[in-house]
Amino acid sequence: MPPSLPPTTSDPRPRDLGTLLVSCADRRGLVAALAQILAGHGANLLDSDQHADPTAGQFFQRIRFDASELRTDRATLVRGIGEVAERFSMKWRLCWGDERKRVAIFVSRYDHCLIDLLARWHSRELDCDIPLIVSNHEALRPIADYFQIPFHMFPISPETKHAQEEAEAALLEAEGVDLIVLARYMQILSGSFIERFPERIINIHHSFLPAFKGGKPYQQAHARGVKLIGATAHYTTVNLDEGPIIEQDVVRCSHRDRATDLSRKGSDLEKVVLARAVRWHLEDRILVCGNKTVVFA
Amino acid sequence: MPPSLPPTTSDPRPRDLGTLLVSCADRRGLVAALAQILAGHGANLLDSDQHADPTAGQFFQRIRFDASELRTDRATLVRGIGEVAERFSMKWRLCWGDERKRVAIFVSRYDHCLIDLLARWHSRELDCDIPLIVSNHEALRPIADYFQIPFHMFPISPETKHAQEEAEAALLEAEGVDLIVLARYMQILSGSFIERFPERIINIHHSFLPAFKGGKPYQQAHARGVKLIGATAHYTTVNLDEGPIIEQDVVRCSHRDRATDLSRKGSDLEKVVLARAVRWHLEDRILVCGNKTVVFA
Amino acid sequence: MPPSLPPTTSDPRPRDLGTLLVSCADRRGLVAALAQILAGHGANLLDSDQHADPTAGQFFQRIRFDASELRTDRATLVRGIGEVAERFSMKWRLCWGDERKRVAIFVSRYDHCLIDLLARWHSRELDCDIPLIVSNHEALRPIADYFQIPFHMFPISPETKHAQEEAEAALLEAEGVDLIVLARYMQILSGSFIERFPERIINIHHSFLPAFKGGKPYQQAHARGVKLIGATAHYTTVNLDEGPIIEQDVVRCSHRDRATDLSRKGSDLEKVVLARAVRWHLEDRILVCGNKTVVFA
Amino acid sequence: MPPSLPPTTSDPRPRDLGTLLVSCADRRGLVAALAQILAGHGANLLDSDQHADPTAGQFFQRIRFDASELRTDRATLVRGIGEVAERFSMKWRLCWGDERKRVAIFVSRYDHCLIDLLARWHSRELDCDIPLIVSNHEALRPIADYFQIPFHMFPISPETKHAQEEAEAALLEAEGVDLIVLARYMQILSGSFIERFPERIINIHHSFLPAFKGGKPYQQAHARGVKLIGATAHYTTVNLDEGPIIEQDVVRCSHRDRATDLSRKGSDLEKVVLARAVRWHLEDRILVCGNKTVVFA
Repeated sequence: MPPSLPPTTSDPRPRDLGTLLVSCADRRGLVAALAQILAGHGANLLDSDQHADPTAGQFFQRIRFDASELRTDRATLVRGIGEVAERFSMKWRLCWGDERKRVAIFVSRYDHCLIDLLARWHSRELDCDIPLIVSNHEALRPIADYFQIPFHMFPISPETKHAQEEAEAALLEAEGVDLIVLARYMQILSGSFIERFPERIINIHHSFLPAFKGGKPYQQAHARGVKLIGATAHYTTVNLDEGPIIEQDVVRCSHRDRATDLSRKGSDLEKVVLARAVRWHLEDRILVCGNKTVVFA
Repeated sequence: MPPSLPPTTSDPRPRDLGTLLVSCADRRGLVAALAQILAGHGANLLDSDQHADPTAGQFFQRIRFDASELRTDRATLVRGIGEVAERFSMKWRLCWGDERKRVAIFVSRYDHCLIDLLARWHSRELDCDIPLIVSNHEALRPIADYFQIPFHMFPISPETKHAQEEAEAALLEAEGVDLIVLARYMQILSGSFIERFPERIINIHHSFLPAFKGGKPYQQAHARGVKLIGATAHYTTVNLDEGPIIEQDVVRCSHRDRATDLSRKGSDLEKVVLARAVRWHLEDRILVCGNKTVVFA
Repeated sequence: MPPSLPPTTSDPRPRDLGTLLVSCADRRGLVAALAQILAGHGANLLDSDQHADPTAGQFFQRIRFDASELRTDRATLVRGIGEVAERFSMKWRLCWGDERKRVAIFVSRYDHCLIDLLARWHSRELDCDIPLIVSNHEALRPIADYFQIPFHMFPISPETKHAQEEAEAALLEAEGVDLIVLARYMQILSGSFIERFPERIINIHHSFLPAFKGGKPYQQAHARGVKLIGATAHYTTVNLDEGPIIEQDVVRCSHRDRATDLSRKGSDLEKVVLARAVRWHLEDRILVCGNKTVVFA
Repeated sequence: MPPSLPPTTSDPRPRDLGTLLVSCADRRGLVAALAQILAGHGANLLDSDQHADPTAGQFFQRIRFDASELRTDRATLVRGIGEVAERFSMKWRLCWGDERKRVAIFVSRYDHCLIDLLARWHSRELDCDIPLIVSNHEALRPIADYFQIPFHMFPISPETKHAQEEAEAALLEAEGVDLIVLARYMQILSGSFIERFPERIINIHHSFLPAFKGGKPYQQAHARGVKLIGATAHYTTVNLDEGPIIEQDVVRCSHRDRATDLSRKGSDLEKVVLARAVRWHLEDRILVCGNKTVVFA
């Protein structure tokens, strides 16, 4: 385990930093009602981002506030927010700065995304706990050992798949995992597993979705002769490669790039795109709207 | 003049769309106070973007609201906002959807930015009036004629500069111009002219500022052997090339690019970067904070 | 028509600049044979770019040479090259600097690509003749008039389509057109028309192909919630949206962008991507290899 | 040490792959002479890239050839090339596929570039030997241990600097090091050290040079309010931050980014930009021309 380095972000998540995520049908008075309830309890609104989707008729808001000088207390504030939320039929989630999210990383044999995530976690760029790594191969255990994270191997075969997923899910629940990151995990998760963790599984697909869905996207891209290749981080749903897109990016390529060059260039993209998506999730910046995301980045 | 084409943006700026821009020292209760005054008059808050700069201790907000169902009237609402603004020592500006900004474009001999701006204006991407074009050369008059915009030629020499700028300023004021766009205008404006139009002159500089300030930036870039060239749109201040940056972008280049190739590649950038900055200004998305901008894009 | 401006590229295409494009099955000795025949006639090789595609087993080369001090003459040199080409079963094409390509632009109602191409042509960035513009609408005739280019209107209906395409093809052939640019031409060309101009029709598609093939790609992109939108310039083949890709680029978007915003952002991309593809074609930088391109950019 | 993974590039550098880099004053017949000498010895020219800089009057070429079926032998071929080189006063360098370059990495306390380089080396993306890591701190020794690379600590103080650099240089020469990579090494190397390794030290600077030279570039960028931040990989010369630029890239930022956010975003850039520069050097793709580079990428 490398020595403890100074954190790369200087902004501590103070104990009293609250982040409120809200979505509901768009109606007059929403914004004022929330601003008022927070101000009324003595919370100081730090920043707020909102979005109204006219097609879906939906409203989304992210509010960060400082609760260090509350006139009441956390519980009373939460009750107050709950009453406003009920009035407007809001779906809402409130996270506090002293509650770190717990993340499980799933991998197979490719190490670039795993090393990248762990290096960012170690430098505190990713502010979370990582209580476990799950894999269907032994290959990357030494990396887990190096970072002193428990590594759980669940070999998967068609016969064992169901039972192994059950065991994985039990382990994740026992560990209180909030987010599962598929860091080039080469197994297709079953629908029943996915449905246990809605909007809580992030996958990295190595193409600019919806182009080149399915297997071997770099080979597909090479065969089609595209001039840019991409990577896409998305929430996993039961419809493979169709989940809400969180982030995408591309890199230029040319006729000189063989499929292996696309793979090398793409690996750099995958790391960066996946890390952005994970960080945004950890910072409560993402709301799902049907099959799309609102990212308050 | 080309025939009237269908607008490329479907969102009309309705008469009753208000955009409120606010900046002040950061204090508790700001957001709630503004939300409350708007809600109290029956304005429906459509969206809001805010930013607190911890270094400067400054707060910035942009609020768009629908005033079509006001319980009072515009004048009463404006008075109410003014009272809140006074309480918090806010600098503020309120623009209505039925008040189009009036833009003057200054040019010399390069036509690419002018043609681009006028084509965007004609397709209604830039929602403004353009009552005049000012130039120190005759070269681009035919373009102005084509788009049926009055073209005013003010030849500049060291002797005539002061008087000509006076004449220009008088014309701009007579025309009620809100924004001056320097679309590759090759004269340096005097400090006294600039100070008459604070935060109302946008310039395009053909480098990634602060690299390659001053003259012939593409030649400078070529001589230095950079691998990317850039363009920068900024508000003009009396300190040349030092004004608050609104937008920047870059394009890749290589050893194969001669200075003329950099110039050609850069022209595409200049157009796009300048157009973005102008559009954001027209849409009241930009606030200046010292020598920096807050762009609610 | 705007006044004659100084050209933006300082490199004249001198009369004696030869550009040789070659493709064939990859074999030993190819490069030396071509270098030798050119040197033997006194042509000075200026630069050369080559590519071997191991999958296709194909070899591609672009050679630019100065023939101003030939020891023989053009005809003899061409015969010499022809003999080498025959020996290696090369497909080849030789273009001289004093032969400008002739380009026809096809448009419908969108003007942004047309204005952009004509502005680049007028500033000599695109070094070609444009003897005609073809359209199925009257809408853009004033732009053609402004640039003093003959505008030919061929209204298309299901009944007239075949006859109109015949008339268009006859006109193109009478005008000796080398390249057809579909600048957001909203008609689907028939297979028989396309086959008359193989690798000589460039289309701009407003998506990052192969994503969002077919109609209304911006709406498709909006519905899918992508975080980048793209544009693709490709040679038109009988398989719609499947032709060899010449160039692609993307721009970032977010949940805030409505379909109309995607359209506006995309228009900037379309212009730039199409202009690059056209320029590369004019400069003899593109070779087609099956369904892919080799672009010596 | 992680398990041996399959290489990410499938193209082995075969024993008989030769890469010839040439630069000289531009003259007629250069290309033909080199093509001929290679063909004459039975070397099969695989690909060739060349560039003539008209301002400097210099010619640059990179030729890759397969020497597996030489009619003579390596030594004879090298003699032949040497004769051509002498005739044209060429500066040249010939590298064989079975000679791996030896790289030393210099670090201080930041780990992101080091981890990234070692992960790429481990996955064979960077095809080189790394016989040692040099640091002025102990902080990153565990990373070196993990990858089983000798870690040499040379603490530097004003008094010891000269002697320590002497010791470092002796070590580098004893290890036969071809390339020194300064992976966020926080010491300024003395001119005498730099001059021992001309065009063999690559540094990563965390700004878009020439903007924000010198110390704390992210703070400088934050203070200036730029909308993009960059990173620059360059060869180190005695003029700090002035050496020939190899590669640059940028990432978008906004008013919301604090200096620490710029630092985080920039770290991703630094890794990628440095890795590209190192790979291109290892693949003999870079030639220096005065204060600029020719990169046959």
